[in-house]
Amino acid sequence: MQVKFATGVKPLSALILLLIAQGTCSPMQAEPDTDRVRARELGIAPGVLPTGEKNDITDVAGVRVGHVTLIEGNDIRTGATAILPHDGNLYQSPVPAAVFVGNGYGKLAGISQIAELGEIETPIVLTNTLSVDRAMSAIIDWTLDQPGNERVRSVNAVVGETNDSGLNNIRKRVLTPDMIREAITSASTGPVQEGAVGAGTGTIAFGWKGGIGSSSRHLPENLGGHTIGVLVQSNFGGILQVDGAPVGERLGQYYLKDEVASDKADGSIMIVIATDAPLSSRNLERLSKRAIAGLARTGASMTNGSGDYVVAFSTYRQTDPAAAQTENDNMSPLFQATIEATEEAIYNSLFMAETVDGFDVSTQSPRRVEALPLDKVKEITGAN
Amino acid sequence: MQVKFATGVKPLSALILLLIAQGTCSPMQAEPDTDRVRARELGIAPGVLPTGEKNDITDVAGVRVGHVTLIEGNDIRTGATAILPHDGNLYQSPVPAAVFVGNGYGKLAGISQIAELGEIETPIVLTNTLSVDRAMSAIIDWTLDQPGNERVRSVNAVVGETNDSGLNNIRKRVLTPDMIREAITSASTGPVQEGAVGAGTGTIAFGWKGGIGSSSRHLPENLGGHTIGVLVQSNFGGILQVDGAPVGERLGQYYLKDEVASDKADGSIMIVIATDAPLSSRNLERLSKRAIAGLARTGASMTNGSGDYVVAFSTYRQTDPAAAQTENDNMSPLFQATIEATEEAIYNSLFMAETVDGFDVSTQSPRRVEALPLDKVKEITGAN
Amino acid sequence: MQVKFATGVKPLSALILLLIAQGTCSPMQAEPDTDRVRARELGIAPGVLPTGEKNDITDVAGVRVGHVTLIEGNDIRTGATAILPHDGNLYQSPVPAAVFVGNGYGKLAGISQIAELGEIETPIVLTNTLSVDRAMSAIIDWTLDQPGNERVRSVNAVVGETNDSGLNNIRKRVLTPDMIREAITSASTGPVQEGAVGAGTGTIAFGWKGGIGSSSRHLPENLGGHTIGVLVQSNFGGILQVDGAPVGERLGQYYLKDEVASDKADGSIMIVIATDAPLSSRNLERLSKRAIAGLARTGASMTNGSGDYVVAFSTYRQTDPAAAQTENDNMSPLFQATIEATEEAIYNSLFMAETVDGFDVSTQSPRRVEALPLDKVKEITGAN
Amino acid sequence: MQVKFATGVKPLSALILLLIAQGTCSPMQAEPDTDRVRARELGIAPGVLPTGEKNDITDVAGVRVGHVTLIEGNDIRTGATAILPHDGNLYQSPVPAAVFVGNGYGKLAGISQIAELGEIETPIVLTNTLSVDRAMSAIIDWTLDQPGNERVRSVNAVVGETNDSGLNNIRKRVLTPDMIREAITSASTGPVQEGAVGAGTGTIAFGWKGGIGSSSRHLPENLGGHTIGVLVQSNFGGILQVDGAPVGERLGQYYLKDEVASDKADGSIMIVIATDAPLSSRNLERLSKRAIAGLARTGASMTNGSGDYVVAFSTYRQTDPAAAQTENDNMSPLFQATIEATEEAIYNSLFMAETVDGFDVSTQSPRRVEALPLDKVKEITGAN
Repeated sequence: MQVKFATGVKPLSALILLLIAQGTCSPMQAEPDTDRVRARELGIAPGVLPTGEKNDITDVAGVRVGHVTLIEGNDIRTGATAILPHDGNLYQSPVPAAVFVGNGYGKLAGISQIAELGEIETPIVLTNTLSVDRAMSAIIDWTLDQPGNERVRSVNAVVGETNDSGLNNIRKRVLTPDMIREAITSASTGPVQEGAVGAGTGTIAFGWKGGIGSSSRHLPENLGGHTIGVLVQSNFGGILQVDGAPVGERLGQYYLKDEVASDKADGSIMIVIATDAPLSSRNLERLSKRAIAGLARTGASMTNGSGDYVVAFSTYRQTDPAAAQTENDNMSPLFQATIEATEEAIYNSLFMAETVDGFDVSTQSPRRVEALPLDKVKEITGAN
Repeated sequence: MQVKFATGVKPLSALILLLIAQGTCSPMQAEPDTDRVRARELGIAPGVLPTGEKNDITDVAGVRVGHVTLIEGNDIRTGATAILPHDGNLYQSPVPAAVFVGNGYGKLAGISQIAELGEIETPIVLTNTLSVDRAMSAIIDWTLDQPGNERVRSVNAVVGETNDSGLNNIRKRVLTPDMIREAITSASTGPVQEGAVGAGTGTIAFGWKGGIGSSSRHLPENLGGHTIGVLVQSNFGGILQVDGAPVGERLGQYYLKDEVASDKADGSIMIVIATDAPLSSRNLERLSKRAIAGLARTGASMTNGSGDYVVAFSTYRQTDPAAAQTENDNMSPLFQATIEATEEAIYNSLFMAETVDGFDVSTQSPRRVEALPLDKVKEITGAN
Repeated sequence: MQVKFATGVKPLSALILLLIAQGTCSPMQAEPDTDRVRARELGIAPGVLPTGEKNDITDVAGVRVGHVTLIEGNDIRTGATAILPHDGNLYQSPVPAAVFVGNGYGKLAGISQIAELGEIETPIVLTNTLSVDRAMSAIIDWTLDQPGNERVRSVNAVVGETNDSGLNNIRKRVLTPDMIREAITSASTGPVQEGAVGAGTGTIAFGWKGGIGSSSRHLPENLGGHTIGVLVQSNFGGILQVDGAPVGERLGQYYLKDEVASDKADGSIMIVIATDAPLSSRNLERLSKRAIAGLARTGASMTNGSGDYVVAFSTYRQTDPAAAQTENDNMSPLFQATIEATEEAIYNSLFMAETVDGFDVSTQSPRRVEALPLDKVKEITGAN
Repeated sequence: MQVKFATGVKPLSALILLLIAQGTCSPMQAEPDTDRVRARELGIAPGVLPTGEKNDITDVAGVRVGHVTLIEGNDIRTGATAILPHDGNLYQSPVPAAVFVGNGYGKLAGISQIAELGEIETPIVLTNTLSVDRAMSAIIDWTLDQPGNERVRSVNAVVGETNDSGLNNIRKRVLTPDMIREAITSASTGPVQEGAVGAGTGTIAFGWKGGIGSSSRHLPENLGGHTIGVLVQSNFGGILQVDGAPVGERLGQYYLKDEVASDKADGSIMIVIATDAPLSSRNLERLSKRAIAGLARTGASMTNGSGDYVVAFSTYRQTDPAAAQTENDNMSPLFQATIEATEEAIYNSLFMAETVDGFDVSTQSPRRVEALPLDKVKEITGAN
């Protein structure tokens, strides 16, 4: 039996109940660990800038996020997450955008056209590595179907991915374009659901359960008054630091432990940045680069097999079309905001993800990936 | 009714007969214009270097090309073309590779990983703009199915495209992964079929029927003795020059004629370069850039809406694994060979393409695109 | 004895007389070959778009060009050329700008900051390969000295070069910052002096005397009404085509003649593009790429040792500060204009350059480089 | 009176005495604060990998470092630092190399040729922003003068810089090519002198005195057995973290304190990476990117006005010419080593730098920049 569900808003409770009723979920999913909290609830507050209201990417007005989660039998733990820059016709009203590639072992679709034209004309969908084609199908079909797009003949679908094969039988390729489309159609402006959900259902970070995380920063008026929101799909490795504290080393779980490379740190991270600051595509690209600094602060090792990508866009044409473009000289606070929100979004992806049982393709056997033990993190960080 | 056929080798005759029998082709396809010849047969020989034996990309030992052509009713004129660097397990034995983006209005899949790792691990498939997802599906499934790939969890499918919506009802998205897979499985080392075939079935170049074209150069021993082969899918505009002769202007068909921009020159070109020269990915990228020089010599305008991409790979690990990498200082003749072969491949795509009747999506009406009138070209170029 | 002279305007006659009086020039420089004409005067008119009034880079309002030429004894044949985007304080009023690197064997100074900030804050100076440091010194000192720059602590000098050691004893490094400064201070909006002058004094192209050349295109109002101006310093090789005619092959002088690589085609070209179109730095970069297409059409081989660089800037903030940025969709005619003006500028650099006697560093002996024989070019092109 | 001195080795004592004798130094320079120690001596040991023997860039066999320091009157506090990949003829035996630009507000000379040819053919010199031309002069002249280079006509000088105008009257441009040449000629394989020396004499980082710092990692045999050495010139801002501890926040000195952007964090960092691992230029570029992760972990804000550059080279052609290039799959431990050594090199630049009195160009007045208070750092980090 197969269960999929699309979720744009919290709470997940109704859907979880459905899943329980259907008996498809492992206890981990079925009984949400109510102890999972966001980093800030544990006193972890990276950086110096204030967050936006919800402390997530939807603090940027108009931005929508939707998830579809697919849990099936013992081996399918996957999904997709869609980010919509606005709820108008994206193809007819594309948004200024840019991409930065931290490490390009990955399949991000749409890169060259974003770079050439400086804009994105579709939703951004995140999913697993072997479903990029399916997510493109979903985006293309959805775009062709939008009212006003009857003559559209070219669609630059933007699809990112990380490899969830540590918990998901990715080779089965069970996600369909129709399922992924639900992530798009269900997207909402509500608080972003985080953890083992959507494209983060089967991901692993630093050896613990990773997933979807989000955070934001709102600059005070004297620094421009703009908002930066970040959403990540965390699936990478390294030596976990939490706001500087050496969590990975203390818990004895990290890349190159005992100086053995086979302690794989591979994996990837997709980072999506939204802002209402009126940025040119050039300055959005610069912003994208700063997300890598946020990533670095969590202890990422940026290994050979990692696909570390950043996609950034601005909504200003929708929210403030007459705004003059932000000058180079005013970019620095936005850079700082990006670094901070990326770092915190990664923590949130770990903090909110529960333990998941699934299937490891490399060993062809069941695997449990534990949630980051927050009590120990609290101890190590000295948070209160 | 739907007809598709995969063809790795000339002649097309048997398949054409099938199509005639099935009554699905317009006369243009059914009665091949036996006057279509390659550029060199008309005395057009760009550059100063000698060609390889077949004067096409399969002159590079081991390289295979396959087409699938889909002609259906009055409005489907499309297909796919696969280029395989060698006939071994491409995933387990990837080839050094690079990409250069001339103008990035296009959806070339696989770019960032090629750049990061410097290699290609799949066939390269060319198709239409709205079938990139399907071609990725075909490549992923084919790769997962290869013997020895039972644990493969990540596939970087390389798919290029141009937009054949001037003759093909592209929005119908009728090409399936299974059809495209036939382009891969039927690929052969024989002479490359050119013109309105495979991914070139519905393309248009300089206002005439474009398509698939190929050419090669073989360097004399004192210049290294290596071979460069080029294959193009031509679908772009500009002011056609044939080996320097102003064909476009003389025939009164060119971009900005009467200085009106609405004489659209948009479109794209996919260029694939193969070589047996032992090149690093860096030098393959440099080689790729030179293909743009060959493109420029045909009169391309490289307009805003054009997707001008080059993918280059080397087969030396298969054919001469112990070879030392070619030094920078020895690259120049390879650059010249690339320029020349690209220019000639484009001419071949035009010279070999017959007139095609199809459907123009932008006007939603039938459209005939004439073959380049070779008799007039002969006159203008003064070829004999 | 040393003679240097700065020239921003035609005619050169007064200075030439000075040189004659001083007995420093060979007859070639002393008796200007009055038969040297621009390409268009021979009926060579690449492309389809109309030129600007002067058919040079100063057709873009406000752009200034200055040369300093240094001829000394038998072995010094060099100089510098300065292009000023406007005559205000460039540091305080930088211009949107971009760079594209065709082949990066070269020392263009200033690249990364132009890319990062999307602007140029100094004059652009072209000179010889071993004088880039001196030209930077000139630009830095000049900038620090400008009224209003008393607190300036950082200057991103933009200096391009080609290697004139085929005629100039480049190792002597006799050009001083003070001399180069004269190219900046003498810059004027008048017609650009072309040929063996300024940074083109000792350069060689296609085996004939190269130098400075310029051309422009003015788009009709329905295509935007903007002007594109190009200036080149030609010093590269290949197989010369003049508006498509195979001049190099017919005259038996070209790269890889007799398939011998030692027929060196190395060398470089610096291309500077000015426009009044209100372009973002991203679209200026795209424009820059198109100059390579113009270069390709002249038969350039883009060899390993060539430094093929393009610098583009827009003056719109000075001439039309309130203009909205040109949309991607309106870029194509500007692209075409760039291709055409670059091609023609290169022809002008060859057509206007006279035969020069100098010193070849590689052989350590005197060398004469002949001017392109225009009578034969006329014959081959069939121009009238 | 002017004093300059070149130093390739520790200790500085003899030179300091000279300076004292000459009465040119402020007490800060004259009486070295013997409490300055390297980070590791305070128990700060970022990462998990072991250091090389000296824990600096000269742990990579053959690499040489030289400094020239210029202290003059009350307002000149500057210098240059040279890194030589080997002591042979660098022009005739260039090293594989790459550059990565973190933020390109800077004047790094030589970028495009390194990228194109994948190698460096000169020493790498670091200096102040307005002396890049002088350092290029020094490198060009030195290269032309090397035995065996008598016919050299082209030199791609590699010069990085940061802006020391917070302590140095940079506009005076007093550093001469001859002085800078001493940094090259005095370079040695000994331990690298760190802190306020050479190109780090007048730099500022995080509001404290920055300067030159270095560190290394030596991979165990099972991870390849190679060494990574890093040298930095630190002159940037942000919110200082020391091995994760929030030093900047605790000491109340950081970018955006009180959310005021005018707390400038501008500045730059030059990072040079040496390795004996047999890396292609592509993999050296990937290595370079990882240095930015090390930078990020120190709390860098990567502001608009920062020039954050990485230059990486490999010495393997000198030390192990027959070595097969490192495979992509074996790069990850080298990436981790780069991250760690960069982070530690930055700490060393701060830990070893003493308080300096100089001249602030922006305010045109004297300025003292304090050394990082190590006792407080010790307290905050909890190091023992």
